[in-house]
Amino acid sequence: MARINENYLKLPGSYLFAEIARRVNRFKTENPSADIIRLGIGDVTRPLVPAVIKGMEAAVAEMGQESTFRGYGPEQGYDFLIQTIIANDFAARGVTIGEDEVFVSDGSKSDVGNIQEIFSDKAKIAITDPVYPVYLDTNVMAGRTGALGEDGRFAGITYLVCNAENNFCPALPESPVDVIYLCVPNNPTGTTLSRSELKKWVDYARETEAVILFDAAYEAYITEADVPHSIYEIEGAKEVAIEFRSFSKTAGFTGTRCAYTVVPKTVMGRTEAGEKVPLNQLWNRRHTTKFNGVPYIIQRGAQAAYSPEGKQQIREVVDYYMNNAKVIREGLLSMGLTVFGGVNAPYIWLKTPAGLDSWGLFDKLLTEVNIVGTPGAGFGPAGEGYFRLTAFGNAERTIEAVERMKTQLKL
Amino acid sequence: MARINENYLKLPGSYLFAEIARRVNRFKTENPSADIIRLGIGDVTRPLVPAVIKGMEAAVAEMGQESTFRGYGPEQGYDFLIQTIIANDFAARGVTIGEDEVFVSDGSKSDVGNIQEIFSDKAKIAITDPVYPVYLDTNVMAGRTGALGEDGRFAGITYLVCNAENNFCPALPESPVDVIYLCVPNNPTGTTLSRSELKKWVDYARETEAVILFDAAYEAYITEADVPHSIYEIEGAKEVAIEFRSFSKTAGFTGTRCAYTVVPKTVMGRTEAGEKVPLNQLWNRRHTTKFNGVPYIIQRGAQAAYSPEGKQQIREVVDYYMNNAKVIREGLLSMGLTVFGGVNAPYIWLKTPAGLDSWGLFDKLLTEVNIVGTPGAGFGPAGEGYFRLTAFGNAERTIEAVERMKTQLKL
Repeated sequence: MARINENYLKLPGSYLFAEIARRVNRFKTENPSADIIRLGIGDVTRPLVPAVIKGMEAAVAEMGQESTFRGYGPEQGYDFLIQTIIANDFAARGVTIGEDEVFVSDGSKSDVGNIQEIFSDKAKIAITDPVYPVYLDTNVMAGRTGALGEDGRFAGITYLVCNAENNFCPALPESPVDVIYLCVPNNPTGTTLSRSELKKWVDYARETEAVILFDAAYEAYITEADVPHSIYEIEGAKEVAIEFRSFSKTAGFTGTRCAYTVVPKTVMGRTEAGEKVPLNQLWNRRHTTKFNGVPYIIQRGAQAAYSPEGKQQIREVVDYYMNNAKVIREGLLSMGLTVFGGVNAPYIWLKTPAGLDSWGLFDKLLTEVNIVGTPGAGFGPAGEGYFRLTAFGNAERTIEAVERMKTQLKL
Repeated sequence: MARINENYLKLPGSYLFAEIARRVNRFKTENPSADIIRLGIGDVTRPLVPAVIKGMEAAVAEMGQESTFRGYGPEQGYDFLIQTIIANDFAARGVTIGEDEVFVSDGSKSDVGNIQEIFSDKAKIAITDPVYPVYLDTNVMAGRTGALGEDGRFAGITYLVCNAENNFCPALPESPVDVIYLCVPNNPTGTTLSRSELKKWVDYARETEAVILFDAAYEAYITEADVPHSIYEIEGAKEVAIEFRSFSKTAGFTGTRCAYTVVPKTVMGRTEAGEKVPLNQLWNRRHTTKFNGVPYIIQRGAQAAYSPEGKQQIREVVDYYMNNAKVIREGLLSMGLTVFGGVNAPYIWLKTPAGLDSWGLFDKLLTEVNIVGTPGAGFGPAGEGYFRLTAFGNAERTIEAVERMKTQLKL
């Protein structure tokens, strides 16, 4: 009898974006001529930049010749990419990272989903609320939670509320935890933590021997000087933090798939008996046992993103999206709405106007101005009363969307 | 305090291929002029075929244009690839598979490593001995075993011995199990199961409600008519089997990364309370939560492998390797050695000559004729007394290796 992992059954069946798709499809069926603008899912729309294309073209050609063909590569990634990552993303900011502390992967979703495996099934987990659902769901699947309560929260998880009241800076956990997930700049709120706010978390983790899982997928969108690009810019972070980086939002790789995770050798976990074990050793074992490396062609594309032309071209794409963010942000502010994010992140997080919950605003935007966004409640109970719009759309369409909201929305 | 997953610590530190590399490097240092021929690791050496290169070139170009750029695709894979897979690998053999039963992934290593997550942590696991190490290691990491014993076996695992005595057809488990891993054609032994042998396993799984995890990564190397290419050719298998397929050995994708897994909706697991749950639903949840799809470019390359030119070109590459297999097999037989495999698989599994254990033969081959193979003991205790050679090398070098063994090896 094949007994199943019953923890999977704790997860609610309907997924946020599936429910959005259902409502949009119904609306389209009933209103076939409606011109819908999608500012919902966080997917990029600009093509890969020429430098990346050139890098991949060369690699494809190499794979077709016996003398340059590549079979299995190192599971952790090729040296050429790891060295380029370290030089550009860390050494350039004064952070020293070793080559065997970087693990190239097919995506931060995979890495932030898989990382929980190296921790005990008894580990206490802290996540922010609202949150990127993968952190929570993968811990539910691993059995680190009880059932989903009527309040929308899983028993056994420490939720760290982030809302306008605390300026989206969560309070430290009231009782000790093993693992803390932080996403900075944040999806979905578009907010960030300043250097001193982040230092508070690093200090807390050092005091309590907790580990911070630091998801920096939106690092390229930081514009303010006081926001750290890497957690390792904070003193002591290399003792307590694992950092996740992605090419998805930086270089438009959502359909191209490359990311990396940094696990400093100085980050320790403990056995129940108290023995210290480097998490680098555990993650290396996980990565080499259950993963076989990112395609050579894709790694060459990622490397090319760091060339001088690549960096310039990517900067222009990021600026394009951030101009969209500015358009949305300023448009909503001019309507008298309360708006967060959009300065160091491609997400705008707005407070729903009085009398509307987040699904209420979703339906209103869809039906009155044919705009699709994401209800905050979909990211956790504390997301209720908020709504996410993304800056990844076409510039003209984004301007049009804001114009519609300003002129046609009945608030 | 970040408590770790202590199951990882049960795994022995030194890995087979690392130990091989260590011995080869020491030999090279001491004998810098030695001309080493590697018939060890199972990696392909022929370049990607022109049809695949052409498919990927076109896809790279698409990714550089706004109108054809692709962001996030379906986690399960694009319809164009899934439909091509079903038509060629299943419908053409009379097997009906639904589009939502196929999950495209970055590799069979990932899939056979991750699949255990959907089963209970109490599930009883059966693996063959010798075995591809990932099946075992991932279950150790998940806590489904006790410690490693002095006999080289983990407590709690049901080992199914495959050796010359049973013609590499393992006996059915003596007591019930939940999950059975079968690799057919087999790595490392190069042997297969006939239709009637495989039917015995399907019948057993149906009777006992076990699930068979069927790794068919070497399917393209089958030459004999009586060997099924898919387990679904066996009546009833769609009730009890999950099948893993890979482009790695078929189309030379070891460094390009694409595979797929078939989970028929009719394969059920059970909760402890006895409720039946489709494993398709659980795997879909796992795949969509922890994975974000294979690069669009790579999926187009995989699709192109099924074009008429692609199939013809790939057939030539497989024939090239299988000619190597024939050369090795016949050469060893002519030396009076006992040899298995090499007919429906690119692996030759030889019995070590009297007086030598598998590491003894490794050292002898390395020092006397400068050939690197893989000691059978590295694949499990029942691999002791055997040795693996692979057919993935260059044809001329393979001929030379066999010539050296025939003329210079002192047995």
